[in-house]
Amino acid sequence: VPDVSTYARILLLTEGNLGVFTSKTATVLLRFRGEDVVAVIDSAFAGQDLGKIIPNSPARPILARVAAAADLQPDALFVGIHPAGGALPPTFRQQIVAALHAGIDVVSGLHTQLAQDDEFRTLAERSGARVVDLRRPPEERRIATGRAKSTGCRRVLTVGTDGNVGKMVTALMLTRLARERGLDARFVATGQTGIMIAGKGVAVDAVIADFAAGAVEQLVLEEGDGELCFIEGQGSIGHPGFSGVTLAILHGACPDAMILVHHAGRTHHRTAGAGPLPPLRAQWQAYESAAALLHPARIVGVALNSHGAAESVVRAEVERIENEFSVPVVDPLRDGCDALLSAVFED
Amino acid sequence: VPDVSTYARILLLTEGNLGVFTSKTATVLLRFRGEDVVAVIDSAFAGQDLGKIIPNSPARPILARVAAAADLQPDALFVGIHPAGGALPPTFRQQIVAALHAGIDVVSGLHTQLAQDDEFRTLAERSGARVVDLRRPPEERRIATGRAKSTGCRRVLTVGTDGNVGKMVTALMLTRLARERGLDARFVATGQTGIMIAGKGVAVDAVIADFAAGAVEQLVLEEGDGELCFIEGQGSIGHPGFSGVTLAILHGACPDAMILVHHAGRTHHRTAGAGPLPPLRAQWQAYESAAALLHPARIVGVALNSHGAAESVVRAEVERIENEFSVPVVDPLRDGCDALLSAVFED
Repeated sequence: VPDVSTYARILLLTEGNLGVFTSKTATVLLRFRGEDVVAVIDSAFAGQDLGKIIPNSPARPILARVAAAADLQPDALFVGIHPAGGALPPTFRQQIVAALHAGIDVVSGLHTQLAQDDEFRTLAERSGARVVDLRRPPEERRIATGRAKSTGCRRVLTVGTDGNVGKMVTALMLTRLARERGLDARFVATGQTGIMIAGKGVAVDAVIADFAAGAVEQLVLEEGDGELCFIEGQGSIGHPGFSGVTLAILHGACPDAMILVHHAGRTHHRTAGAGPLPPLRAQWQAYESAAALLHPARIVGVALNSHGAAESVVRAEVERIENEFSVPVVDPLRDGCDALLSAVFED
Repeated sequence: VPDVSTYARILLLTEGNLGVFTSKTATVLLRFRGEDVVAVIDSAFAGQDLGKIIPNSPARPILARVAAAADLQPDALFVGIHPAGGALPPTFRQQIVAALHAGIDVVSGLHTQLAQDDEFRTLAERSGARVVDLRRPPEERRIATGRAKSTGCRRVLTVGTDGNVGKMVTALMLTRLARERGLDARFVATGQTGIMIAGKGVAVDAVIADFAAGAVEQLVLEEGDGELCFIEGQGSIGHPGFSGVTLAILHGACPDAMILVHHAGRTHHRTAGAGPLPPLRAQWQAYESAAALLHPARIVGVALNSHGAAESVVRAEVERIENEFSVPVVDPLRDGCDALLSAVFED
């Protein structure tokens, strides 16, 4: 898989999904690689003001078709959505066809492997464009042995009370802040959107179960010469479907400290039927008990995602968590990550 | 995948590995499906007394070649070893070729998929024999939601302080004992050897990480109409490489009670480099904390594997664990599982 962080003139494809929940990938790319994005491709929103749809995004045109972006000399089309199930929405096909026809590389984090699509492959071979599927397990199959704990780097894992709470964004913001402070901070991507930002990483949820921790361990070892390493967690230790992936990342990374990410007011897992979130204290203990089996790590701070929550709910949550656990609680997007970064060093 | 429990005239292939550690699969098959085995195929031990090599095994001939077993009218050749890495040892090829040539089905739990081998496939097509690979993920991909906890069946999971301690054997012995007592007891296989015994199940370590718990949940739901359900655990919650699989099974199965399996005197994980076993108390708490996130379950008894341990070590371990945790501690092979089965009902 090529390093997708080297693309510098990206078209972001959201085709009809701009601003809705599934376009999280696009939102994150605009926030953390905005300088590498030259336009958004979405025929449903063409001509509108991007900043009004995705607050704080850089000023970029929204175009109806890939062909309309020719003057911008794009070097890649990134699939900017992550639909449930991970299949390619049929409406995306024509835009991808147009990109490959024009010799523009296509980068995707979908479960569906675009490189195995006959039409895409034929077009890519003809034009010399590449189709890059990020959601593929690494060729090498490793069994983790806990070696990550002996790297000199200070390792920080973002863990969550559910999926889709902001673990990746928190890790990315901490990485950016630490770099602004002059630290050699690394980001370890464990999901497809993280890989689009970092240029490397492994989509752990696509790895065969026995090798999931080993894949993460390898990524952490590769960053072992940094001063700080922020590892993006996945799922949640109390999620019936994803807890195995969560623990594989915890034991693959052997963090020195954890940041817990919670969505204010969320009481139930987003996955339909997966039931209520376990009590915060029980999750807290489960994370720290599990970590301690290999390498002790405390939860040193809480990132509280306040998206869509009433101000009173957010205030009550902050107060409750600070009182009960005596750690800093901040909303990264509103308050910044300074308090969390300090907490990482105090522990 | 066909139901491999219907084979009743099995040849067990160990070819040079009989009695060594890797032939665990053969040993377990002889113990739990001995009545379905007609001979062992192993040219290095041909003509020797099977009972002297594998204690307590039924009297069966050890033959040098598949052809020598023709009079026994075998219906399948089971690959009876599980080498590290899971690849097919080259010395096994000729025996498998001979079986397929003679129209005898071949059943394998190796990582290497025998059905994709050109020579085997051609021979099987010609003779009408089947090649059955058990270590394949199910076609369906499910995300677990914790539904197992609402089945009427009493669910008991065997968990371990390491891999290869006896979780499967303990679950199988408990199942057998419960059936002898007239209970409708089910066994849920989560590994290839368990599947060879039960005829169905999923090799969880071969499933993509996101779907591992979902596969187990589905198996448990299918046995939900039984009185008791013994689920075979895998790995260990403190094993750096396998803890993710362990937790996926725990949350997929939502047990009502757990039996902890420990190997007397073992201080380090068997996986090279994976370090010391975490303290028993820390593991105990981690298992119960993790279970409680979805459905509370206590460890109600300990199965102490005494294989190769000095009598004094075993006695000391029994005393220490009984004193510290106030649960019954037995060696299933020596003491039977009565105390463990009682404990399952007392909790």
